[in-house]
Amino acid sequence: MSALDALLRPRGIAVVGASAGPGKAGHAMMQALDGFTGELYPVNPRGGTVRGRTALTSLGELPGPVDLAVLVVPPRAVPGAIEEAARVGVRAAVVCAGGFAESGPEGRRLQERAVEAARRGGVRLLGPNTSGFMNPVDGVFANFMPAAATLRPGTVGIVAQSGGVNLTIAFLLDRAGLGLRLGVGLGNAADTGFADLLDFYADDDATAAVGLHVEGVTDGGALVAALRRLTARKPVVAFKVGRSDVGDFARSHTGSLTGSYELTRAALAQAGAVVVDGLDEMVAALQALRSVRLPAAPRSTTGVAVLTGQAGPGLVVADALGARGVRVPELAPATLDRLGDLLPPLTYQRNPVDTGRPSDTFPDVLRLVAAEPGIDAVGVYALDEPGVLDPVHAVAGTAGRVLYATGGPAAVVERHRERLEDVGVPLYSSPGDLAAGLAALVDDAAARAVVDAPPVTATRTLGRALDEDEAKALFETRGLRTMRRRTAADRATAHTAFDELGGPDRPVVVKVLDAAVLHKSDVGGVHVGVRGHTELDAALDTIDAIDAIGPGDADAATEATGAGTTPGAGAPARRRYLVEEQAPPGTELIVGGIRDAVFGPVVLLGLGGVGVELTGGPGAEPVLRLAPLSPERASEMVDALPDAVLDGFRGAPPVDRAALAAVLRAVSDVLTQHHDVTEIDLNPVRATARGPVVLDAVVVAGTPEEEPHDRHI
Amino acid sequence: MSALDALLRPRGIAVVGASAGPGKAGHAMMQALDGFTGELYPVNPRGGTVRGRTALTSLGELPGPVDLAVLVVPPRAVPGAIEEAARVGVRAAVVCAGGFAESGPEGRRLQERAVEAARRGGVRLLGPNTSGFMNPVDGVFANFMPAAATLRPGTVGIVAQSGGVNLTIAFLLDRAGLGLRLGVGLGNAADTGFADLLDFYADDDATAAVGLHVEGVTDGGALVAALRRLTARKPVVAFKVGRSDVGDFARSHTGSLTGSYELTRAALAQAGAVVVDGLDEMVAALQALRSVRLPAAPRSTTGVAVLTGQAGPGLVVADALGARGVRVPELAPATLDRLGDLLPPLTYQRNPVDTGRPSDTFPDVLRLVAAEPGIDAVGVYALDEPGVLDPVHAVAGTAGRVLYATGGPAAVVERHRERLEDVGVPLYSSPGDLAAGLAALVDDAAARAVVDAPPVTATRTLGRALDEDEAKALFETRGLRTMRRRTAADRATAHTAFDELGGPDRPVVVKVLDAAVLHKSDVGGVHVGVRGHTELDAALDTIDAIDAIGPGDADAATEATGAGTTPGAGAPARRRYLVEEQAPPGTELIVGGIRDAVFGPVVLLGLGGVGVELTGGPGAEPVLRLAPLSPERASEMVDALPDAVLDGFRGAPPVDRAALAAVLRAVSDVLTQHHDVTEIDLNPVRATARGPVVLDAVVVAGTPEEEPHDRHI
Repeated sequence: MSALDALLRPRGIAVVGASAGPGKAGHAMMQALDGFTGELYPVNPRGGTVRGRTALTSLGELPGPVDLAVLVVPPRAVPGAIEEAARVGVRAAVVCAGGFAESGPEGRRLQERAVEAARRGGVRLLGPNTSGFMNPVDGVFANFMPAAATLRPGTVGIVAQSGGVNLTIAFLLDRAGLGLRLGVGLGNAADTGFADLLDFYADDDATAAVGLHVEGVTDGGALVAALRRLTARKPVVAFKVGRSDVGDFARSHTGSLTGSYELTRAALAQAGAVVVDGLDEMVAALQALRSVRLPAAPRSTTGVAVLTGQAGPGLVVADALGARGVRVPELAPATLDRLGDLLPPLTYQRNPVDTGRPSDTFPDVLRLVAAEPGIDAVGVYALDEPGVLDPVHAVAGTAGRVLYATGGPAAVVERHRERLEDVGVPLYSSPGDLAAGLAALVDDAAARAVVDAPPVTATRTLGRALDEDEAKALFETRGLRTMRRRTAADRATAHTAFDELGGPDRPVVVKVLDAAVLHKSDVGGVHVGVRGHTELDAALDTIDAIDAIGPGDADAATEATGAGTTPGAGAPARRRYLVEEQAPPGTELIVGGIRDAVFGPVVLLGLGGVGVELTGGPGAEPVLRLAPLSPERASEMVDALPDAVLDGFRGAPPVDRAALAAVLRAVSDVLTQHHDVTEIDLNPVRATARGPVVLDAVVVAGTPEEEPHDRHI
Repeated sequence: MSALDALLRPRGIAVVGASAGPGKAGHAMMQALDGFTGELYPVNPRGGTVRGRTALTSLGELPGPVDLAVLVVPPRAVPGAIEEAARVGVRAAVVCAGGFAESGPEGRRLQERAVEAARRGGVRLLGPNTSGFMNPVDGVFANFMPAAATLRPGTVGIVAQSGGVNLTIAFLLDRAGLGLRLGVGLGNAADTGFADLLDFYADDDATAAVGLHVEGVTDGGALVAALRRLTARKPVVAFKVGRSDVGDFARSHTGSLTGSYELTRAALAQAGAVVVDGLDEMVAALQALRSVRLPAAPRSTTGVAVLTGQAGPGLVVADALGARGVRVPELAPATLDRLGDLLPPLTYQRNPVDTGRPSDTFPDVLRLVAAEPGIDAVGVYALDEPGVLDPVHAVAGTAGRVLYATGGPAAVVERHRERLEDVGVPLYSSPGDLAAGLAALVDDAAARAVVDAPPVTATRTLGRALDEDEAKALFETRGLRTMRRRTAADRATAHTAFDELGGPDRPVVVKVLDAAVLHKSDVGGVHVGVRGHTELDAALDTIDAIDAIGPGDADAATEATGAGTTPGAGAPARRRYLVEEQAPPGTELIVGGIRDAVFGPVVLLGLGGVGVELTGGPGAEPVLRLAPLSPERASEMVDALPDAVLDGFRGAPPVDRAALAAVLRAVSDVLTQHHDVTEIDLNPVRATARGPVVLDAVVVAGTPEEEPHDRHI
């Protein structure tokens, strides 16, 4: 039995703050629970009758212990109510009131008192600041929206950070004809959080698929671990709020920072979830995944076919699939031969397969396409034509591989939906939703295709930030390539280094060597194409003129060097230089690592160059993954770069994918093995014809035991 | 009376190919027309009875002329049937059969014969290759999908390139509670095309808003002109297929190339349409726009407020609006003061406005927010709470500025939808659709905010391609800035030019000067940073070694120089050089012009640099607009660049917006005034601290009278 059974499947319920006044939350809660078949006790200090039941004046009057207390009382009364509930043997409580952590320091203290009371008394809490939950399968509607009690039982579970969104999703599911297993709004999640619910669903046989709504995450590790456990068994569709800047309002709402939108999405996907852009897309995805789940496979090997009774809508479906990166491969010659026998010659048959106006052969065509080895799932679009095509007849023998969409009068479509559901085939009402459903099947299969490395406990300490020479040396010991270089503590040594490495036809790069200068290029600390001693002197002059700590670098330098070693302003006592061979041409990439406050070690792979930072388009977004990286995960990161980059853009040599994956793993290893490394920047890593070369390296090490690194990337 | 009235509002109809066999298209068509209240004649050579009506054996048996003949006959029989229809006074025909232009050369000839027959006989054609149309307002369902006859009358019009998509959209509208004015599938559009239908809707008082589905466009000018006429009166929501590569299937379907996705979308928006990404979004947009239209205004001055009864869904709405680029501005202090009196202190009120659990003050709050001068439209989200909030009561006095969304049991929502519709307020069922509706209001207002210049008739001829010096001179006469330069027909002159323009501290740029070499950089024809005579000689050596026509340049060179002046392979008789001052730093932009085969002259503004071409993200897409550019349109193009670019990225000076707009207009003028200029590339235009400078210029002039320039960008 799950730890949350007392909360979510209670045998008895007391509603503290139950009210006879229609319109009041304490009345609405009792109304929602009208149909509850277990013991139900309204509690109100003034007594009286609530919806036909005699109210107790306190929990002390309960005839015996009940599992769940629903608290519809003002925030200040909550800690006391929890204590009283614990005294009479209540094992779980739903706290509806707002005015806790989301409202400021005072509310935060109140929330802490409520949690302490609950922990002391062995009471699990849901909330505060939630409308509650709906459990149609077990007949428990502990929610102050009585309309929720009309929700039909089904197999879809919801975990929403917001009680309102929990209801919104539930009604969207209902509108799409999907029943609900359980819907929970976490609110402030003072006790019961994402991980608890995900674990509940993992063990719950009645749950087929789960929708997850995330505003902000506080414990990324727990969420990711629980999500991995659940997605190994069941599909999860996740929606993260925060694509645009909604931080202020979000903070006021559940007290959670929205955190990094991109990193949270990457973490959810890495843990196996299908990540969607909105709630309608979530519903379309859940509709597919509660009935159909494909075997784990990368996106590049999963093939989808589109079978359509009308060319135009089929084209809309295929176009939407293409835009979502779903492969719609040409069918095999043998399949095409047999299709030629079944279909009129005028239609397009290579995939999409256009049947023309459907005929008796439609079911044979569908079976043929669904059976082709290169096709993992088929999306059917066919307008409703009574007497011409019966959907249930059409899909015979293809359930588990087919999603269907139609257009027609609402009542007819609803009837088809129920009949198709009985045979395990989801029915959509729009081409766009069908494409979203098909894409969800592919995304779910892809999210499970890569095995991640198990977590690593950092055992080493670096002790201090490294200068570029030391940082490169560190990565050389891990097999990464750099250019030949010499450090120089004075000008004479720099000139000797030039004689060794450079010349008129062999330009060198001259840089300032100082761990305190993080943005070398911006302050004139990097000089490329130095071909002679005069140019070298000019470069060294510029480098000598750099303030150790430029105006914008002050914070970074402090962080980089640690509090004990911060140099003063002005030029340092001794300026050091790095003289390095200039690298052959190639595509410039950025490989980075950071220790995120929520999700821990993260590795980043991005494109170099100014243009990329400007545009912010999909291809320009860096690829983010949680470390440690397995070999497979590192390869998957590389493959996530645009093909145009990997194949060698504008005459650049092709990128050595395996060698680049090794760079990613080296960064992952350094980051996860050293508990004081907070940031790594290999920028750029140049993908030359002889493989990736690290042209610059920064390793920032902080003092984690003294100050927490509350960084959000 | 519209030219299409005989087609779309016929008083009498003959169905040629009417059939008694259920499942046949000729039977389905008669079934769809069952409720038609005018004269209806089945025609079948075998006579008999079709759905209770005695069939004529030929059109010749008609007792008198009818307006419309619906032809459900095989393709080969179509031209003859049209001729016969014309003979008996029929004024319009719907041709359902496929097998015409979309199927190959033979079908194309058949289609031409059908069109000739129709033109000769004064018969307007719809199709071929369409399921027909539905006109619920006038009770005409001339469509072989009988289910279409259940569609309810309303105010939304549809023009779909595909008959299937016409039905798909109609059923999606129906599902969203929207009635249909008229839905037309054009099919191959052999006679009746986009422009005819758009003009019909412009003059039709029963139409409030129009949905437009586009696969490919053949006559861009006619479409744009008709769309401008319609959008001046009524909102249009357009969806263009072809975001991904669906060309093969698309060609097989209606015989239309999908053409340039980005250019078609830009043209539709420039002509005043709201351009959406899918059919569900189209329906959400139409639902808003058929009831609410904001005054024309740029996106930057239109403000939307979100009022929500539940914080979580309100956050989802605000997030989606932000992602769509809709402004959700903070409310004015005076409004916030008064909100403070109406709402509990714990909720967020600055916009979004979170009411907390709705109370009696909800209608006052909505009226207050809707009346704020900075707010043009309000989106309300409130879960259904009977007894707590009545939607119709809530919106009193705010119709025309408010869209509403709710979640609740389907039947209850449907009742609210009808009641709200009666007072002119659209009701949505999801936060995402509400955001799409609000964004459509803003997009529609923005699409009308910029006045375009009237078309220009090209009166001049350039006669031949220009070399870089001539092209720069051309743009200098139009006020654009270039760097000082000298042309040199031999090396000695080049050295003299260097003495004049360059020096060790004043590097120059040395380039090959030859209109036949279009991609100078790729073949070693551009040398920057030349600081002395030795370097100059090295540059000239490289330039001399260029083949006049490199392997990849052969076609381009032919095009550039015209057939009569194409140089042979190998180095030309006389190599010429351009020596130019090097420009100060700045952001590099691309300004281009092209004469598109479908849409005519087009001006392009994009970011320079390799990274941009790599990424393909939203910010990286070039801005495309139809020429001629009005001053306002040129400014709007500039403003469409990312702010990060315009404000000066990474230390670059801010872009002089007015001066850049002038560059765009100069390109527009040269392109629209010269009928033989096919392409202009100012690449790069560098936005320096002293304004934009044209660093390279290519003007390609073809011989339009000899060969059509069938270019699609």
